[in-house]
Amino acid sequence: MKHLSAQEIRQKIRDGEWTKPTAGLAQNNAQANLVILPKELAYDFLLFCQRNPKPCPLLEVTDVGSPIPYLTAPDADLRTDLPKYRIYEYGELIAEVTDITQYWRDDLVSFLIGCSFTFEQALLTNNLPVRHIQEGKNVPMYKTNISCQNAGVFHGNLVVSMRPFQPRDAIRAAQITSRFPSVHGAPVHMGNPKLIGIDNLDEVDFGEAVTLKENEIPVFWACGVTPQAVAMQSKPPFMITHAPGHMFITDQKDESYSIL
Amino acid sequence: MKHLSAQEIRQKIRDGEWTKPTAGLAQNNAQANLVILPKELAYDFLLFCQRNPKPCPLLEVTDVGSPIPYLTAPDADLRTDLPKYRIYEYGELIAEVTDITQYWRDDLVSFLIGCSFTFEQALLTNNLPVRHIQEGKNVPMYKTNISCQNAGVFHGNLVVSMRPFQPRDAIRAAQITSRFPSVHGAPVHMGNPKLIGIDNLDEVDFGEAVTLKENEIPVFWACGVTPQAVAMQSKPPFMITHAPGHMFITDQKDESYSIL
Repeated sequence: MKHLSAQEIRQKIRDGEWTKPTAGLAQNNAQANLVILPKELAYDFLLFCQRNPKPCPLLEVTDVGSPIPYLTAPDADLRTDLPKYRIYEYGELIAEVTDITQYWRDDLVSFLIGCSFTFEQALLTNNLPVRHIQEGKNVPMYKTNISCQNAGVFHGNLVVSMRPFQPRDAIRAAQITSRFPSVHGAPVHMGNPKLIGIDNLDEVDFGEAVTLKENEIPVFWACGVTPQAVAMQSKPPFMITHAPGHMFITDQKDESYSIL
Repeated sequence: MKHLSAQEIRQKIRDGEWTKPTAGLAQNNAQANLVILPKELAYDFLLFCQRNPKPCPLLEVTDVGSPIPYLTAPDADLRTDLPKYRIYEYGELIAEVTDITQYWRDDLVSFLIGCSFTFEQALLTNNLPVRHIQEGKNVPMYKTNISCQNAGVFHGNLVVSMRPFQPRDAIRAAQITSRFPSVHGAPVHMGNPKLIGIDNLDEVDFGEAVTLKENEIPVFWACGVTPQAVAMQSKPPFMITHAPGHMFITDQKDESYSIL
């Protein structure tokens, strides 16, 4: 799998031959979080993303009723090309499936939201150690006390991901991720977690805790879980998302999202 | 006027004491283009901006019916705080006014779109000569053969602004404007204008032609006139914009839009 192209991997996923997480697949291709909402809620959600670009970097918003992401992968179908989906009604998980064709409706809008895999690739290329990858874990994520800007029915606090670095590497990591403003961009905080409402780094809200070594400082980035958590909180009558870690693989290279 | 704060200038405009263009006022504060549309069209327009971020850098989108730009200037009122407005019905100019209070409706959404004044300030700070400022003219703008990404009823070609530079300065200008991805960002083209469908630099579509000196190359940036031109083309039943050059002055510093 590791040597297949994005198109080839999506074909295998479509054929039901791959239902596992997508981390490490089609390296150098951008992967995306998926949120699908009825048109009725799409304006408020689009506005929420516009007002909160750091946690909600939109790679693409599809036309109403169309499952085709024309800009990021024109031959893909969002109903079949992710390994696993979650279906929600009024904020409650009602099913986890590998194909959403039977759930599709003409009033649905799909939001593809950038993912930190993109800038992590750039960190690795720069020989910066990414702790959760080293430890074979999911990235640690925390709810903060930082309010997002409201938009219509959507409101909530920022969720951040955390990666520990030696101070010199933290500075370099800030430089590297600044090159990717459309995929979370520069960190939102570094150092004392209490300043953003995180009491204990060992108690994650999502993902898994990682080791913080001597002299390392925790570095926090806005996280793409934010829009999903915020959407969930508003308990929309109907919503589909990818299952955690089971992302959409686009045709776009990670580097195409760097502005420098 | 040149030494007043953004708030003080907006007060003078509100009081009817200033009805002229805003260039050069509240230097270092970001100015914005204004497009006001009924909610019915707001989703398509917001999506158009999301799909075409280089020509349509949204600084703020107000809540439906609210004339207050809470994020960029919370004490301002978009109905009174621009020196001049244009009112359109079905794409036709029906009035030019200095106050739109009598035209305001509960279903209107205001889009504040970033303007090249922001990066021009950074060019000047770097001692790069900006020709149209030197010549006391409006920036030359051209329609190109580059299609924007469609969104609902909105479609059209990219409009660019042009600034001539010596090659070394053109490179520096590309670096400087890359720091401002949320205000048009890096150039979209440099050199031969024919490659993007411009036959003659002396024949502008908007603004005024400027001198191209020996060995200079024309450098082209995506222009905020694009969304306005595209909105106009769709002949919406009702639309309000700022009058050319009569922009909204925000409380935000230009530098706050740089990512580096």
